[in-house]
Amino acid sequence: MAESMQGLHRSHRCTEVNNTMIGNTVTVMGWVQKSRNKGGIIFVDLRDRSGILQVIFEEANCGAESFAKAEKLRSEFVVAITGEVAKRGGAVNENLATGDIEVIAKDIRILAEADTPPFPIEENSKTKEDLRLKYRYLDLRRPDLQKNIMMRSKVTTLVRSFMADEGFIEIETPTLCKSTPEGARDYLVPSRIHPGEFYALPQSPQIYKQLLMCSGYDRYFQIARCYRDEDLRADRQPEFTQIDMELSFVDVDDVIDVNERLLAKLFKEVIGVDVQLPIQRMTYKEAMERFGSDKPDLRFGMELCDVTDVVKDCEFVVFKNAIEAGGSVRGINAEGQGAMPRKKIDALVDFAKGYGAKGLAYIAIHEDGTMKSSFAKFMKDEEMQALVAKMNGKPGDLLLFAADKSKLVYDVLGALRLEIANQLGLLKKDEYRFVWITEFPLLEWSEELGRYQAMHHPFTMPMEEDLQYIESDPGRVRAKAYDIVLNGTEIGGGSVRIHQDDIQEMMFKALGFTMERAYDQFGFLLNAFKYGVPPHAGLAYGLDRLVMLMAQEDSIRDVIAFPKVKDASCLMSEAPNTVDAKQLEELGISIVKPEAETEE
Amino acid sequence: MAESMQGLHRSHRCTEVNNTMIGNTVTVMGWVQKSRNKGGIIFVDLRDRSGILQVIFEEANCGAESFAKAEKLRSEFVVAITGEVAKRGGAVNENLATGDIEVIAKDIRILAEADTPPFPIEENSKTKEDLRLKYRYLDLRRPDLQKNIMMRSKVTTLVRSFMADEGFIEIETPTLCKSTPEGARDYLVPSRIHPGEFYALPQSPQIYKQLLMCSGYDRYFQIARCYRDEDLRADRQPEFTQIDMELSFVDVDDVIDVNERLLAKLFKEVIGVDVQLPIQRMTYKEAMERFGSDKPDLRFGMELCDVTDVVKDCEFVVFKNAIEAGGSVRGINAEGQGAMPRKKIDALVDFAKGYGAKGLAYIAIHEDGTMKSSFAKFMKDEEMQALVAKMNGKPGDLLLFAADKSKLVYDVLGALRLEIANQLGLLKKDEYRFVWITEFPLLEWSEELGRYQAMHHPFTMPMEEDLQYIESDPGRVRAKAYDIVLNGTEIGGGSVRIHQDDIQEMMFKALGFTMERAYDQFGFLLNAFKYGVPPHAGLAYGLDRLVMLMAQEDSIRDVIAFPKVKDASCLMSEAPNTVDAKQLEELGISIVKPEAETEE
Repeated sequence: MAESMQGLHRSHRCTEVNNTMIGNTVTVMGWVQKSRNKGGIIFVDLRDRSGILQVIFEEANCGAESFAKAEKLRSEFVVAITGEVAKRGGAVNENLATGDIEVIAKDIRILAEADTPPFPIEENSKTKEDLRLKYRYLDLRRPDLQKNIMMRSKVTTLVRSFMADEGFIEIETPTLCKSTPEGARDYLVPSRIHPGEFYALPQSPQIYKQLLMCSGYDRYFQIARCYRDEDLRADRQPEFTQIDMELSFVDVDDVIDVNERLLAKLFKEVIGVDVQLPIQRMTYKEAMERFGSDKPDLRFGMELCDVTDVVKDCEFVVFKNAIEAGGSVRGINAEGQGAMPRKKIDALVDFAKGYGAKGLAYIAIHEDGTMKSSFAKFMKDEEMQALVAKMNGKPGDLLLFAADKSKLVYDVLGALRLEIANQLGLLKKDEYRFVWITEFPLLEWSEELGRYQAMHHPFTMPMEEDLQYIESDPGRVRAKAYDIVLNGTEIGGGSVRIHQDDIQEMMFKALGFTMERAYDQFGFLLNAFKYGVPPHAGLAYGLDRLVMLMAQEDSIRDVIAFPKVKDASCLMSEAPNTVDAKQLEELGISIVKPEAETEE
Repeated sequence: MAESMQGLHRSHRCTEVNNTMIGNTVTVMGWVQKSRNKGGIIFVDLRDRSGILQVIFEEANCGAESFAKAEKLRSEFVVAITGEVAKRGGAVNENLATGDIEVIAKDIRILAEADTPPFPIEENSKTKEDLRLKYRYLDLRRPDLQKNIMMRSKVTTLVRSFMADEGFIEIETPTLCKSTPEGARDYLVPSRIHPGEFYALPQSPQIYKQLLMCSGYDRYFQIARCYRDEDLRADRQPEFTQIDMELSFVDVDDVIDVNERLLAKLFKEVIGVDVQLPIQRMTYKEAMERFGSDKPDLRFGMELCDVTDVVKDCEFVVFKNAIEAGGSVRGINAEGQGAMPRKKIDALVDFAKGYGAKGLAYIAIHEDGTMKSSFAKFMKDEEMQALVAKMNGKPGDLLLFAADKSKLVYDVLGALRLEIANQLGLLKKDEYRFVWITEFPLLEWSEELGRYQAMHHPFTMPMEEDLQYIESDPGRVRAKAYDIVLNGTEIGGGSVRIHQDDIQEMMFKALGFTMERAYDQFGFLLNAFKYGVPPHAGLAYGLDRLVMLMAQEDSIRDVIAFPKVKDASCLMSEAPNTVDAKQLEELGISIVKPEAETEE
């Protein structure tokens, strides 16, 4: 039987009670973390979002009725307790903020009883995630998850106040939008009033924020919900949140400046980390050549080394063929790993194959200077020496090589580099290494489409100095695009947008779009551009990923209150679910029967 | 041809340039509001979001090339101008913040040309709204709309900082939810991964915020997008925004307290209005009896007066029948309107009929004390005298009466009161009268369902003292629910929630729900309640309406960047639209052909 709290007022949260208040009467409310009767004294750990406070019940102090209630307490009961703050009788608990005090209960009300939870409410839960997600409302009681959710709130609060101070206007953009067939898959919403027509949930507020620049809002921001109906990879959510911004009358440096100050403020105020400004910048080309990735993890070295020139005349066919086909041979030096057992090296080879490599060549340099290598027999001695020298190989090192088209070599060695670093424990979560990646290619060739496609989107501004190549050599044109990368994760990205109609036309031409098709897809934006569009640029962060890294978590599910699982369902609410026939009838849609599906 | 702004930096927004900067060189960027050549001097009004600045071009100062460019300028061209700040040569323009200065241009770049807009970009536009909505990106350039959008941003910024200071945690709740068949109509989102199943867009975060209280977050808030697929009334949007909050371990007064301070802060800081605290409270019963409405407009009097007792023995059948049927007779005194022409009175009668009245009885008291009345012939003299006295009728007043079931009488006179006040210009937009309406009925009888239904929702707490009637006389039970009303508009509302399982069961019983059905609909919330639920209460504001009143606008479309029109379509983007067959195929749905529709 639940009691009412009528007439009662909470005076403090649990950890607001402290040793300056000894002798005071307080009223605290929360959940019973644990309760035990030790020789006629009942010890209750009371928990609220602030932490834990110890309360003790002695019949002499609280009377028979309250004592009887206290005897009934079990984990997760919700109680209101009034009592006197006292110095802790027993040993001080150094792990608690309130470890040197306790509350001598005078009165208790049981506000709600509780069934035994299906798993213990405790930090670093070992309970299977699926069970915790089914009972997410209980999982969310765990202090580590509460810490994350509160950190997320602190991040958004700080972002908003910073943006307001910088003259950004928060503007809400629609989420019932027009569907465009290109790009990632839209979530659709059938219209009841217009049968046969659909809204699309936005993949980002991109077009709206550019319109707002046309409308003269100058600096826009929004923490916006976005949607992508993708086949879910490891750590994607069907709905996710962006910190989204756009600025008028700016160039790359202005966007980078405001964002560096934002990041420095966030990391300092939320987790006490100093971000060294300015943040290092690296071109896309340099990132690929040095780290095999456009989101390099700079917490460790193990950089890629181009050995094409050194091995170009050797007899090893794997190297030779790759080079002759226009590819390259590159390696990484896993320093100190020269004694890695064959089995582990084989696992690395398999790992590389998973990224499309045909194999992985290696040289293990023993401490005595002798070498074991998968391809030494094809190499002259001086070739081997030159190769090892180029790789800066020392006794005890393990050199790993991939030979193929350069793009594949980058992918393989970029991934391998991370894998080895992970095995060696080099990926420290409390070390934060930022880098801006700039000068992305404007276009990338799509084998599937048989044409170039925009690496970011069709409104990304080419670099002025590369404009001359946009017809003759489109792949050579670099974009005024930039990503901000943290510890090997892209946490945000953006670009300067095209505001000149002639450049926009060139861009569509390079994409193989007729202007008719361009209008069909982006009509209202292109129309808006006719009436005076300012130079503008923007950036968007993935909030979930940003907070995940700040909270040192491995999954964005740990920083989202009610996440979905890989198949885009919610284990707690059981969404999506079937609906009434009447609802579908009103929408003028019907479900295609499974028979029809199997015909595909 | 658009020029690049490369190498240029804006030094100031237009109205940041002021008379302390005379002689300084500034670079300003914006849109040409107007441009005119007066005797070889070109005057340009440059506009950005801050306002307008006058720039003048003289060939002697800016050179031939810039002058030639300036000659080409037309409205809405986007330009960057560098020049020297000077005291204004001509007459000071008192209407402009920068009216006493001008910029003597040295250099200009045309960043973008502009077609002639389809309507002038000016305050208080007389252009038809539909055309403005089609070109919303141009409409949004108008200073009055910019003021509204910026005010909205200021409101949300202040709300967020206030809530953070008060210990509220911002938590994002899902928007791909489970559909429940009851309540307003859901927008549905077909699931591709689970064919035949659907998500629903949330009508509010109600269930999630109650779950967060179960999870111990103590104080939650969110500025949340909500969705209702309703037949659109005058001023509804398919998606709208709520300021949503929930608090644990509180009762009515705690919620009211924090919200009064929030409102006072908002009105003071955004529009300089002092809100007198505490805000007046009025029970639902009193509001209905005095104003015929649970959202009374307190900017004027004209209160309802119950004259049932006075006329209960008269011979006027309209009054008599209404009273005999258990109804009442009530009137309002439109003071000073005794000389209203018959035609206008007839219009009021028609207005009343629109609200379901069978008619409207009236007494016009002439200045000489004589009376003209639609029903005097049925009344004895002393009955008329008593009636006029009860109504506090004075020479020159117009008394209007409705007789029917009390609910209908309230509706009619409540609406009539507003209509007359509107005609008399009593609804001053710069006067802000707040009132809390409390003690709402818990349940209301639904003729359609043949049972009681929850006036707010099934989790609303009954008042302790009325619990005894929940079985015997459910209609008598009042709820711990409260609305905040401003100038006759409900801007927010909420309630204390039930946290006791026994009361929740009584509530479902009163609603005619079996517990099985209750679990079917609210299963995961009711399950959560088993594991220790704290007492909690909350409130949500309609942000659009709140900002509309603060901005003194008549429509929420004037405070939403990209609103939809009555048929839930967007005139700018043309959403909703048809989609590719492939998209529907992937979702496993098909459109029901019009032929099938006509069979209904």
